[in-house]
Amino acid sequence: MARVSQEHLDARRRQILDGAARCFARNGFHATSMQDVFTEVGLSAGAVYRYFNGKEALIAAIAQEAFGGIRAAFEDASRMVPPPMPDVLLGGVLRMFLEQRIPGADQRAFPRLIIQVWTETLRDEQLSATLAAGYQGMRAAWSELVEAYRKNGLLRADVPADHVARTLIAVAQGFIAQQALFGDVAVEVLEDGLRGLMSMETQSAS
Amino acid sequence: MARVSQEHLDARRRQILDGAARCFARNGFHATSMQDVFTEVGLSAGAVYRYFNGKEALIAAIAQEAFGGIRAAFEDASRMVPPPMPDVLLGGVLRMFLEQRIPGADQRAFPRLIIQVWTETLRDEQLSATLAAGYQGMRAAWSELVEAYRKNGLLRADVPADHVARTLIAVAQGFIAQQALFGDVAVEVLEDGLRGLMSMETQSAS
Repeated sequence: MARVSQEHLDARRRQILDGAARCFARNGFHATSMQDVFTEVGLSAGAVYRYFNGKEALIAAIAQEAFGGIRAAFEDASRMVPPPMPDVLLGGVLRMFLEQRIPGADQRAFPRLIIQVWTETLRDEQLSATLAAGYQGMRAAWSELVEAYRKNGLLRADVPADHVARTLIAVAQGFIAQQALFGDVAVEVLEDGLRGLMSMETQSAS
Repeated sequence: MARVSQEHLDARRRQILDGAARCFARNGFHATSMQDVFTEVGLSAGAVYRYFNGKEALIAAIAQEAFGGIRAAFEDASRMVPPPMPDVLLGGVLRMFLEQRIPGADQRAFPRLIIQVWTETLRDEQLSATLAAGYQGMRAAWSELVEAYRKNGLLRADVPADHVARTLIAVAQGFIAQQALFGDVAVEVLEDGLRGLMSMETQSAS
């Protein structure tokens, strides 16, 4: 009995979060009211408040999940042995990202939610701290990966691993922004683009 | 007389836009009231409304300027003869971007404003159209540049120029996001990172 009950609670929570995410992706955090959320999920105010005490709590839970999804994509990629080259690796991260769907919403809903969360961190210290911690974790994991490239003679010796890691993260962030704003990102765009850049040896390279 | 008067009008307009930009960068578009703007710029409601009929008009004018600044940085870079390699070129764009200051605000205010504008385009069709047009222009200009790399034998032949252009734009967008969110971006991070990637020839490269 207790087990079924927990499953029911989890399913309800999921239903509320998905409905709120659809509202937020459509109209933004600020233009969405709790009433909009009740209507979207088809539950009473009382039923929703049993799980989340207000809009801030919903935003925090959704942001937490979104960060978790992106971080997992980066970390999974960084554990691949042997590490694939950056075009394949980052292509894998973007593919996982593009596959993240909010049930009942279109393909752009998730990236649109992400850039709203970015904006929201500017004014919300707790969200900001969560995002910063996730970013530090990604930088560290990807720096190790870049060091592995270097040890295998695949990367020039005179650039800090952290700077390459941050540039790879920037590529992913940029394509998240492009998908949110223009909606026409495909994994091949990133893969081709990185392969092109990787073929452009600079004059001063060793 | 007429000339002095126009200068005065322009200076007033500038003063209002800079004050509004400080408010928006600090608290976001939604949490900023017109009253906040009056207080920040030290002008009466009547004086401000002579120039802008409300918050939407202020946001549109600020977004227009911000897009213009970034687009100019990309276009200036794409006109350099001979075109420098991507690390130098994109480093130049980021340097121009980081130097854009809102008078009286800190270095992160401008990138914070940019990511707010990204979010705002999700719900504002006119802003969205402006952003999309600017992005198309950048893609076209940078694709030409990538073709120039190819003609000079600097880039492998089997990747579409547009995909390389979009990847370069993504790097810039990603670093704008990192500067807004974490505030520790320096031009060398991007330059080193791209130089590192450019040294990583893929196995299948021609």
